[in-house]
Amino acid sequence: MNDETWRNDVTMLDTARTEAQTPADRPADDRVGIWLVGARGSIGTTVAVGLHVIANELAAPTGCTTAGDEFVGVPLPRFADLVLGGHDISRTPLTLRAQQLADSGMIPPRLVSAAQSGLEQADAEIRPGYDPAAHHGSQAEVVRRLAADIAGFRARHALRTVVVVDISSTEPIPEDRPEFHDTVLLAEVLADPDAALLPASAVTALAAIESGSAYACFTPSAALTLPAIRALAKERGIAFAGQDGKTGETLLRTAIAPMFVARGMHVHSWAGANLLGGGDGATLADPEAVRSKLASKTRGLRSLVGEHVVAPLHIDNVPDLGDIKTAWDHIHAEGFLGSRITMQTIWSAYDSMLAAPLILDIARLLALAETAGVRGVVPELGFFFKDPWGSDVHDFSRQTTELYAWAHATGERAATATAATATAARSSEALGR
Amino acid sequence: MNDETWRNDVTMLDTARTEAQTPADRPADDRVGIWLVGARGSIGTTVAVGLHVIANELAAPTGCTTAGDEFVGVPLPRFADLVLGGHDISRTPLTLRAQQLADSGMIPPRLVSAAQSGLEQADAEIRPGYDPAAHHGSQAEVVRRLAADIAGFRARHALRTVVVVDISSTEPIPEDRPEFHDTVLLAEVLADPDAALLPASAVTALAAIESGSAYACFTPSAALTLPAIRALAKERGIAFAGQDGKTGETLLRTAIAPMFVARGMHVHSWAGANLLGGGDGATLADPEAVRSKLASKTRGLRSLVGEHVVAPLHIDNVPDLGDIKTAWDHIHAEGFLGSRITMQTIWSAYDSMLAAPLILDIARLLALAETAGVRGVVPELGFFFKDPWGSDVHDFSRQTTELYAWAHATGERAATATAATATAARSSEALGR
Amino acid sequence: MNDETWRNDVTMLDTARTEAQTPADRPADDRVGIWLVGARGSIGTTVAVGLHVIANELAAPTGCTTAGDEFVGVPLPRFADLVLGGHDISRTPLTLRAQQLADSGMIPPRLVSAAQSGLEQADAEIRPGYDPAAHHGSQAEVVRRLAADIAGFRARHALRTVVVVDISSTEPIPEDRPEFHDTVLLAEVLADPDAALLPASAVTALAAIESGSAYACFTPSAALTLPAIRALAKERGIAFAGQDGKTGETLLRTAIAPMFVARGMHVHSWAGANLLGGGDGATLADPEAVRSKLASKTRGLRSLVGEHVVAPLHIDNVPDLGDIKTAWDHIHAEGFLGSRITMQTIWSAYDSMLAAPLILDIARLLALAETAGVRGVVPELGFFFKDPWGSDVHDFSRQTTELYAWAHATGERAATATAATATAARSSEALGR
Amino acid sequence: MNDETWRNDVTMLDTARTEAQTPADRPADDRVGIWLVGARGSIGTTVAVGLHVIANELAAPTGCTTAGDEFVGVPLPRFADLVLGGHDISRTPLTLRAQQLADSGMIPPRLVSAAQSGLEQADAEIRPGYDPAAHHGSQAEVVRRLAADIAGFRARHALRTVVVVDISSTEPIPEDRPEFHDTVLLAEVLADPDAALLPASAVTALAAIESGSAYACFTPSAALTLPAIRALAKERGIAFAGQDGKTGETLLRTAIAPMFVARGMHVHSWAGANLLGGGDGATLADPEAVRSKLASKTRGLRSLVGEHVVAPLHIDNVPDLGDIKTAWDHIHAEGFLGSRITMQTIWSAYDSMLAAPLILDIARLLALAETAGVRGVVPELGFFFKDPWGSDVHDFSRQTTELYAWAHATGERAATATAATATAARSSEALGR
Repeated sequence: MNDETWRNDVTMLDTARTEAQTPADRPADDRVGIWLVGARGSIGTTVAVGLHVIANELAAPTGCTTAGDEFVGVPLPRFADLVLGGHDISRTPLTLRAQQLADSGMIPPRLVSAAQSGLEQADAEIRPGYDPAAHHGSQAEVVRRLAADIAGFRARHALRTVVVVDISSTEPIPEDRPEFHDTVLLAEVLADPDAALLPASAVTALAAIESGSAYACFTPSAALTLPAIRALAKERGIAFAGQDGKTGETLLRTAIAPMFVARGMHVHSWAGANLLGGGDGATLADPEAVRSKLASKTRGLRSLVGEHVVAPLHIDNVPDLGDIKTAWDHIHAEGFLGSRITMQTIWSAYDSMLAAPLILDIARLLALAETAGVRGVVPELGFFFKDPWGSDVHDFSRQTTELYAWAHATGERAATATAATATAARSSEALGR
Repeated sequence: MNDETWRNDVTMLDTARTEAQTPADRPADDRVGIWLVGARGSIGTTVAVGLHVIANELAAPTGCTTAGDEFVGVPLPRFADLVLGGHDISRTPLTLRAQQLADSGMIPPRLVSAAQSGLEQADAEIRPGYDPAAHHGSQAEVVRRLAADIAGFRARHALRTVVVVDISSTEPIPEDRPEFHDTVLLAEVLADPDAALLPASAVTALAAIESGSAYACFTPSAALTLPAIRALAKERGIAFAGQDGKTGETLLRTAIAPMFVARGMHVHSWAGANLLGGGDGATLADPEAVRSKLASKTRGLRSLVGEHVVAPLHIDNVPDLGDIKTAWDHIHAEGFLGSRITMQTIWSAYDSMLAAPLILDIARLLALAETAGVRGVVPELGFFFKDPWGSDVHDFSRQTTELYAWAHATGERAATATAATATAARSSEALGR
Repeated sequence: MNDETWRNDVTMLDTARTEAQTPADRPADDRVGIWLVGARGSIGTTVAVGLHVIANELAAPTGCTTAGDEFVGVPLPRFADLVLGGHDISRTPLTLRAQQLADSGMIPPRLVSAAQSGLEQADAEIRPGYDPAAHHGSQAEVVRRLAADIAGFRARHALRTVVVVDISSTEPIPEDRPEFHDTVLLAEVLADPDAALLPASAVTALAAIESGSAYACFTPSAALTLPAIRALAKERGIAFAGQDGKTGETLLRTAIAPMFVARGMHVHSWAGANLLGGGDGATLADPEAVRSKLASKTRGLRSLVGEHVVAPLHIDNVPDLGDIKTAWDHIHAEGFLGSRITMQTIWSAYDSMLAAPLILDIARLLALAETAGVRGVVPELGFFFKDPWGSDVHDFSRQTTELYAWAHATGERAATATAATATAARSSEALGR
Repeated sequence: MNDETWRNDVTMLDTARTEAQTPADRPADDRVGIWLVGARGSIGTTVAVGLHVIANELAAPTGCTTAGDEFVGVPLPRFADLVLGGHDISRTPLTLRAQQLADSGMIPPRLVSAAQSGLEQADAEIRPGYDPAAHHGSQAEVVRRLAADIAGFRARHALRTVVVVDISSTEPIPEDRPEFHDTVLLAEVLADPDAALLPASAVTALAAIESGSAYACFTPSAALTLPAIRALAKERGIAFAGQDGKTGETLLRTAIAPMFVARGMHVHSWAGANLLGGGDGATLADPEAVRSKLASKTRGLRSLVGEHVVAPLHIDNVPDLGDIKTAWDHIHAEGFLGSRITMQTIWSAYDSMLAAPLILDIARLLALAETAGVRGVVPELGFFFKDPWGSDVHDFSRQTTELYAWAHATGERAATATAATATAARSSEALGR
């Protein structure tokens, strides 16, 4: 695939996009799609149940950052204007997955019952995902098929924009290859039906790019970190953010670590132990897969308290614990006259329940970015990520301040842009176009 | 005591102050006094050891906020320019107290050995404190005696300024009285030799005011919260800050609570258990004395996560634990779809080792304030306190940001003021004055 | 009520008991009644659900001591032979209470569904309990009514024996009275319609005595600790055991404390903090009610590690935590050369889920005791209690050993007794009686 | 080395032993040697300080099991009758090591000062240990040299017996070899100057055997688990016990696990994280070396709660924590109706302070065993070990009961044996021998 091919695809998709702008029962530019890659996993299912019950006001949007007082006045899409779809290699329907999560004690059964119609609608919008283990033709074809799925979704629902969020399982870190650094080389190998060079996360990112969707990477996988993929994203002008959702232990760490620094204490070590079951526990039991996760988790810590910190970290698969994740951290800091300060934290929560509201937040904020004409990486969404793209700010409080400021500034730009569009639309109508 | 009397006293003290401006071996305006009320307690002793070894570069100023990179360029007094004195009702010499703290494992023995001369010098500047249980004449006389002690200290060491810091034991909350609200009524009752209306902390505050010293309240006692005392402080124009040092559990809480809020979680309960021995443990075992402490500890929490929070809190005296304080907090928050999130923190540290560096920080910063001509309450020092005077900001990260900004702004004002003074001094010299 | 009256009552009840021995669909002497005082509380409801699903083999008897390998060969009543009834002042049906406990996440909904018929049957055997706040006539009349309820239950179900278990709320400790020590004085005051001297727990115990039932006290209330009541229990010859179910924190303590002692360590302090909501949390928030609980909790600890131990203990009502109880313990022990050893335990569980299986265990074991002709206190059931009656053994491991030995010895006596009865029965039949 | 050679060595050593029986200032048979392999490590140094101050009644024997009330009446050697010696490859004198441990905060400085003479005496009895990395001639020669060191120690101090305790660093598990199973093959390879087949721990065990000393293995290394070595120990008739001191986390586990079992709970998982610095932390950071440790730690757990238990376990080297070891365990058990019970334990202590008193206990008990004529493995000392030789009892409470019973029974045998010896001695004297 050369640059020309990319352009062709882009044109094709832009056409699809334009066609999608036909009015629906509500103004087209109010509706936003969320396309989840890994839509039938625990997080995806929780998002689907949650979105339905929140949109229908059967539950409050607790856990959603963007539902807070600080976002009053920011023209975010309403929960009721979010439409779900996605890819998954699993065929288990969302209704069944939701029932399993209710039986495990994670989702209240009454909410699953209440969300049946929402789950069925979302399920109808889930398409077969990319399974590297199956035969697929060239990866270029795969990308086109996936992008077409997204474009079709946008068209069917007359969506203003679609935000693709990758919530699939953590991958092993791929070995570096020249093709990862050169879009021409990359296009060639993608067109080769016998090669399957890219990890699935990068295929997902390409599909988002080709479909002109905003994109967020909730996993620590390679995805848009491959330079050639990132170059294409910038060229295409999508808004994107990542990486690796900051849901639990790292969230705590980045809230607590600055406290030690502000008080002049010297953090010697910060050891962590994570126990979890569920599908994520099994994935992370694979030492290869977990490596990117562990790297992602300690990077922020080192940035905050210094490279010297001793930070052993383990993730153990404990199947009997199910979806509840328990993390123990032990911090040793040195204070006045060399005195020993120890702090321990124990965090226990359903991991998918922490992740799901962030997906909704990210989607609302990237939709806002798109409306405001933001292109490329959005560093201010680093608030949501262990390994923030485009930013070296890990301090959770600073991230909070930056996010609030960005949301308000972007909200103003979006309002202006929307007003301009509306004016143009009215002018067009007046001109009989 | 009426306003006139106050003025007379002030004049008397100002005279003393002027007399003290005789040059010493280093420029008078570089040396700053720290006057500790409760100077022979664990914190006072730790300050004395620490100041000596830091000033002599035998130990790094770990645990001191003002030694951090963020304060580079702020014209704070150097550690070597800080001089210690104070009041205490105990006669146990600092050298002996320091040895006891070394034996208990708290202060490294080699530092105590190294600090002998510093301890002896500081001990020579400790005067008998105000003991409400003993007979003293009128409280007005007591205030004059205490203020004269401070003025004498300033004079002897040719100090540019003195910062009085109250680190004495927590008092019971006094019942409200009309005299607390009216400076005229207050002056009358203070002059009555048979009345002893004011709690010791307020007597301390008055002595600081009378001596024209900056003042900080490191305890949760009444002190400068009595309106009449505060009015006198403002009238006198001293800089002051308080209240109740934020050293451990509350420090954590105010660093962690904003994280839950930023993530849209609903904090239902935040329960705490504190175990400590030492003198503080015994003091806080008294339910009356502890009431002000507990109120102070939960106020910030409620301000951050909402008044609804269920926040039982206990402080137990466990003598065998000595000076190590252990605090367990259990937080229950509600997240997405009502899911349960629990977080526990366990903090363990020598309480005096946490407090001592803050005393040095506060003294340096109030000395800076004084140089810059700051008068009245300094809300930006709320960073150091559980119950910040003049501020309703409890979020530790926001406090950090505000402190940094204040320090730099005040530093610039101080530099300007110092330059003006120097110019004036040179002019005076030139004019032969 | 004098001794004569007691005898009359006893005779009356014995008659009822004899009448009850009519054969049912299974041999009368295989069926055992459990009469729960407080049957509609969380524990009672959990017992009802649990007994039904275990008896019907829809769930394993996990958590039941007597279902363990060590009890193989002991002729305990089968779960399917246990019949539930009880007293309660609440009118909320068990089916509704069970649904509430399912909604709270405590009992799996499918088990509640499966247990509907069992819940309805048990509910039909719940009679109005004794409410000290309501008018009742004399307490003697109350006792007679309650005992008649129990006798009727035994008769209706042709039960071999009934075990009364008091699982009602903790009471304040009553002030001592002469009547508590003298059965004649007690009988007089009980007959007085204007007096209501006895706490409810003692009324319950008397009803068990009058009905000739075995009795267990699962609460820390006065109950059978009043000497006059105990004298009557002995005179009547019932088997009884108590007191205050050892379900969580105290269970741990009595398992762990002997370890420190065996290793020659000196335990200085053992501090505890308990957080719980639910009905029990509210009850224990009353400082009067909680006093007996706290005393009960520390008694065993002092017996194991020495009277010197500093053992502050708090129980806080944290309604949002519901039925999950979380207990934090901090232990400070001194080891070799005075070195500091700290151990902390954090226990988190549904309190009713811990208590319910013990009720089944106690009922099975007291039924065995009765069959074997055991009379009076059964010290070996101290295994189940914080404050074991008739024993000063608190070491959980020693209690385990003693329980196993007692169960086997008593099982042999019971088998002998049963064989003798059967022989006698056959003889009677042969004689045409 | 063939069996004959072994006999020769043994004869040589027996001669040495006989020569040593010359009378000293107190009856020779009252003095017992402790020969520590790894004598200059943290544990060895702590033993040396502790033994001196306890023997001289400057400190109580806190932490020593055998100093407890349960051992009253058991004729153990007195602390004052224990004499220290040992092997080490380090040359750092004990006085310096002790000072380092005082500086680190572990041993109180006043005890180190008080123990100077004891440290010097013990240091004078430390001989160069076996360093596999250096050239030594054949391992047979090494064994002879080491055994001679021990024999010389016994002779110099006229010791009744010597107990060799291996407290050296954990070794990697050696690959199995035919020589480990056959004493003839073993002797051959030992004699080969170019072979160095045996791990150091087995060389140590052989030296103990050759010198006719009792032997205890405090590490998880191969040592006497090699069948050929064990056969020689049995043939030689020494008393021995092992393996891997049960000092902290495993101690807790074996005290707590039986509680879950006794209450019919099903333990699903028991995860552990260990943080430690010091030399032990560095050793255990080597994945090879730690494998034997980890296996040893989980074996007992599986034996107690079932093979099904999921038990991930990590040991992290965190140098800044020094000799304090912190262990976090997370236990998930299933209770009534499948309900979730979680328990967490956090243990924090100086590891060497936990180990040192056990060394004294083991030495006293093995000396008793020797006096009583006990030969071969002593399973009842499993109380002290993670992986008890000759026993499958891991339940700490059962081990305690067995130890007490064994000590009293063996004490009686020892008393009888001593009386017989004394009678024989008096007879000999009477006969003029």
